Amino acid sequence: MSKKTVTSITNREIDFSQWYTDIVKKAELIEYSNVKGCIYFKPNGYGIWENIQKIVDSKFKNLGHENVYLPMFIPESLLQKEADHIEGFAPEVAYVTQVGNEVLEERLVVRPTSEVLFCELYKSVLESHRDLPKLYNQWCSVVRWEKTTRPFLRTSEFLWQEGHTVHDSAKEAKAHTLTMLDVYVDLFENYLAVPVIKGIKTEKEKFAGANSTYTIEALMFDGKALQCGTSHFLGNSFAKAFDVTYTDKNNKLKSPYQTSYGISTRSIGSIIMVHGDNNGLVLPPKIAPTQIIIVPIRQNKEIVQEKSLQIKEVLSKLFSVKLDLSDKTPGWKFNEYEMKGIPLRIEIGPKDIENNSCILARRDTGEKTTVSLDNIENTVSNMLDSIQKNMFETARKRRDENIREAHTFDEFTNIIETKQGFVKAMWCGDVACEEKIKEITTASSRCIPFGSSKINDKCVCCGKDATKAVIWGKAY
Amino acid sequence: MSKKTVTSITNREIDFSQWYTDIVKKAELIEYSNVKGCIYFKPNGYGIWENIQKIVDSKFKNLGHENVYLPMFIPESLLQKEADHIEGFAPEVAYVTQVGNEVLEERLVVRPTSEVLFCELYKSVLESHRDLPKLYNQWCSVVRWEKTTRPFLRTSEFLWQEGHTVHDSAKEAKAHTLTMLDVYVDLFENYLAVPVIKGIKTEKEKFAGANSTYTIEALMFDGKALQCGTSHFLGNSFAKAFDVTYTDKNNKLKSPYQTSYGISTRSIGSIIMVHGDNNGLVLPPKIAPTQIIIVPIRQNKEIVQEKSLQIKEVLSKLFSVKLDLSDKTPGWKFNEYEMKGIPLRIEIGPKDIENNSCILARRDTGEKTTVSLDNIENTVSNMLDSIQKNMFETARKRRDENIREAHTFDEFTNIIETKQGFVKAMWCGDVACEEKIKEITTASSRCIPFGSSKINDKCVCCGKDATKAVIWGKAY
Repeated sequence: MSKKTVTSITNREIDFSQWYTDIVKKAELIEYSNVKGCIYFKPNGYGIWENIQKIVDSKFKNLGHENVYLPMFIPESLLQKEADHIEGFAPEVAYVTQVGNEVLEERLVVRPTSEVLFCELYKSVLESHRDLPKLYNQWCSVVRWEKTTRPFLRTSEFLWQEGHTVHDSAKEAKAHTLTMLDVYVDLFENYLAVPVIKGIKTEKEKFAGANSTYTIEALMFDGKALQCGTSHFLGNSFAKAFDVTYTDKNNKLKSPYQTSYGISTRSIGSIIMVHGDNNGLVLPPKIAPTQIIIVPIRQNKEIVQEKSLQIKEVLSKLFSVKLDLSDKTPGWKFNEYEMKGIPLRIEIGPKDIENNSCILARRDTGEKTTVSLDNIENTVSNMLDSIQKNMFETARKRRDENIREAHTFDEFTNIIETKQGFVKAMWCGDVACEEKIKEITTASSRCIPFGSSKINDKCVCCGKDATKAVIWGKAY
Repeated sequence: MSKKTVTSITNREIDFSQWYTDIVKKAELIEYSNVKGCIYFKPNGYGIWENIQKIVDSKFKNLGHENVYLPMFIPESLLQKEADHIEGFAPEVAYVTQVGNEVLEERLVVRPTSEVLFCELYKSVLESHRDLPKLYNQWCSVVRWEKTTRPFLRTSEFLWQEGHTVHDSAKEAKAHTLTMLDVYVDLFENYLAVPVIKGIKTEKEKFAGANSTYTIEALMFDGKALQCGTSHFLGNSFAKAFDVTYTDKNNKLKSPYQTSYGISTRSIGSIIMVHGDNNGLVLPPKIAPTQIIIVPIRQNKEIVQEKSLQIKEVLSKLFSVKLDLSDKTPGWKFNEYEMKGIPLRIEIGPKDIENNSCILARRDTGEKTTVSLDNIENTVSNMLDSIQKNMFETARKRRDENIREAHTFDEFTNIIETKQGFVKAMWCGDVACEEKIKEITTASSRCIPFGSSKINDKCVCCGKDATKAVIWGKAY
C-alpha cells in the first residue's frame, strides 16, 4: 500500500484512541521509534512545536527571562538531595551506567526535569540581593520512562521548556508562579484555541518537591482531561537542600524562594484532541506551520498556473502559504490537506479567474465562499481570524457543556459512567476521599479552580463539611 | 572572594590554556558541571548560540530544509548496522542500561550523531523519486565521552545542528555537500569573523562511515587549528545497510545518496580563541547577544540618566543595547563589559551632554571617539560594521601570516616547534606518511584545501611523487 495515499481514518466517535493514532500518522506528524515510547517528530509535527517555541520564547523574554542550557546528565547523588523530589521521579528515570567499555563509578540520571541542576547553577551565580530575581529558562528534552505511552501525550522522551527562577521573597515568587500560569493560559487560549481551567493542584497531585502547583486543564473531545501546563511555587526547600544562598539587604545569608514551570510537546496532543475531526487534523491558524494551501483547478492551463503563483506571492508576504502543482487530482489534494489540518484552502480555476475570484474553503467548518481576488490578502486575513476565533468558541462551548455539577456520590459516578467530561463537586480536603473517588470512579482531582463558587457545603464523598469546589475528571 | 569582582585574567601570551579557562568563567559563559566534560551554558554563553542558531536556521530554511526531532536513544543493534560507523563511535558512547528498577533487555546508546536514526526515518518517508531530495535538519545535543575535555571545544555533551539529506543521484548529493560547506564558510567568515580554509579531509581523518568529508579549518591565536564544521558525502552505504529505498523514474527500486553536516557549540570556542585578548572576550557585533553597553558618567545627575535612557531607546530599535545604572563605578563597568566582550561602549557624562556628544569605545581596538548625538544610530551602525570588518581582517591577516610552506621534513618540524600555525606541505597520499608526520610532529592533516597550488613535486615525508598540497597543524 502506498504510504502517500489519502486513506480514511477511524471514526472519532467510534474509537477515539485509534482515531488519534491514525491522525498522528496520516497527518505525518510523527513516526514511531523502535525504542518504547520514543517518537520521530516529522516536519509537520515539529513545525507546530517550532511555532509554539517562538510564541513562548518571545513572551518569556519580554518578561525578562534569559535562556540557558544545562547538562542532560544528573549524578544520582545530586538528584537524591531533595527527598520528595527523588521519591517522585525515581521509578521512571533512565540511568547511564557505562561509557565505551568503562563502567561509571556513579550512575548518571538522564534529566527527568532540572530543578537540582538549576540549584547548582544558582549556587554559583547568586551573591547578593542585587542579583535577584533571576529568571532562567531552558528548552530541552527530558526523559521519564512511563508504563503506558502515546505520541505527544506521554512519551519516554519529550520536548519542553522549563523555567526556573529565584526570588528575594516568597510573595514575589508566588506572584511570579501565577504570572507564568497566565502566560500559559494566553498561549493555549489565544494561540492554540484550547480553552483551559486554571487552578491549584491538591497536595496529592502536586509536583514532587513543590510547595504548591498551579495548573491549566483542558477538556479533550472524548471527555477526558489533559493537564496542559504547570507552574510550581517551590518555597525555599530546594535552595536549602542545595545550599543556594545570597546576602540580603541587611547583609544576612538567606535562601532564595524558587519557582519552576513548564509546557511540553504534549500541547500538540491537546490541539489534535480538541480540534481534530473525522477528516483529520485541524490546526488553529496562529500555530499552523502552513496556514494556506492553494489548489489550482485545471492547472495545465497557463493562466491558472500564473494566477496561482501570483496569489501565492501576494499572500506569502503575510502568511505561510503553499501551492500544490503536483500531478495529483484536486480531489486528492483537498483530502490530503484536510488530513494535515491546513486552516484555509484556496481553490482557483479558469472560471474563477474569468470572474476575478477564487474559492476559500475553511478547514474548521468546511464552508466554501467565493471571494474577489481584489484585496485577497485582507479577505484571507479576516477569514483566518474568524477561523481562529470560531475554533476557540466551539471548543469553549463544548467544554462548558461538559462541566457537570455532582451533589452526591451517585450523581458523580453516573456522570463519569454515562457522560464523561469534567465533574464539579465539593471536597472536604481529606486525601482519603480524593483517593476513594479515584479508585471508584477513575476520575482524579484536576484542580481547585480559581474563583470557583461553592455548589453546596458537603463533601461529595464523605458528607463532611467542605469548602473547596474541585474539578474532577478522567485524565490522560 | 566575590564572584562578581572584575579580576584580571591570565596573560594569553604566557598561558593560553589558562587564559581560555579564565575567559569562559569570567565572561560568565559557563559553569562547570560535576559530570566530567559537561558544562552549564549561562545566558552570556547560550545567547551566542541562540544567535548562531537564528542565522543558520534561516539560511537552512531558505535552502529548503525542514526541521525534525529524532529520539536521543539509539538501540545498540541499530547503531551496529553500519560497520565503519559503529567502529568510529563505540569507544565514546554512553549507554543507558537501566530504567527505574528494571534492567533493559537491550542497551540504549545516547546519540553521538543521528545518521542511523535518519535512515530509519527516511525509510518510512521515502516512496518515489518525487519525494527527493529531502533536506532534514535537527537541533539537539549529542554525547561523545572524550578523554580530554574543555568547555565548548570538546565536551561530553554538546549542542549542534545535524543536517541529513537524501538525493536521487550521487552528483546532486555531492553538490549539496559543498553547498552546505559554503553556508558554514559564510557563517564563520561573515558573522563570527573567523576566517576558514575549506578543503577535503584525508581518508584517515574523514567521518566514520562517510565516502568523503569536507571541512572548514580555522587558526586559533595560539597557532593551533580548530575544525569548525564538516559536511559529509555518505554515498549510499548507509541507505543500503538500512534498506532505505525508493522507486526511480523507471519504476526500479534504488537506494538514495545521502549527506550529513554539522556545526556545534565548538563555534563559540573559535570566537574566544580567535578574537579574545588580555582584557577578556571580544565578540563580533553580528553575533553578540548585547552589542552596545551604555555607561553613564556621574549618573546621579538627572540629565545624565535622562540622556542615557533616551539614547538607549533610540538605539534599541536597531540594536541589542544595555544600560548599566548600577552603583558600580564607571571604571568597574568598563572592565566588566570589556571582559564580557561587548563590541561597543557608549560613555556619556554631563560634559558630553553639554557638547551634544558622547564617547564611543570600540572593544576590538580600544579606540575612543567623541561623536555627535545627532544621528547617533547611523554613527553606531557604521562603527559596528567597521568593528565586524576589522575583526575579520585582523584574524585573516594573522592566519595568512601563519601558513608556512615546508619543503623538507626538517622545515616541517622546525615550523611546528618554533612557530606553530599551519604548515603547507606536499603529500604522496600514503597514510603511513600521514601517520609518521603526526607521530613525530604531533601535527595532523587538517585538509587538502580546494584550489591549492602545488609547492613542489615530492612528499614532505617520504620524498616520493606527490600531487596533493595538504594543510597540517596541531589541532584542538
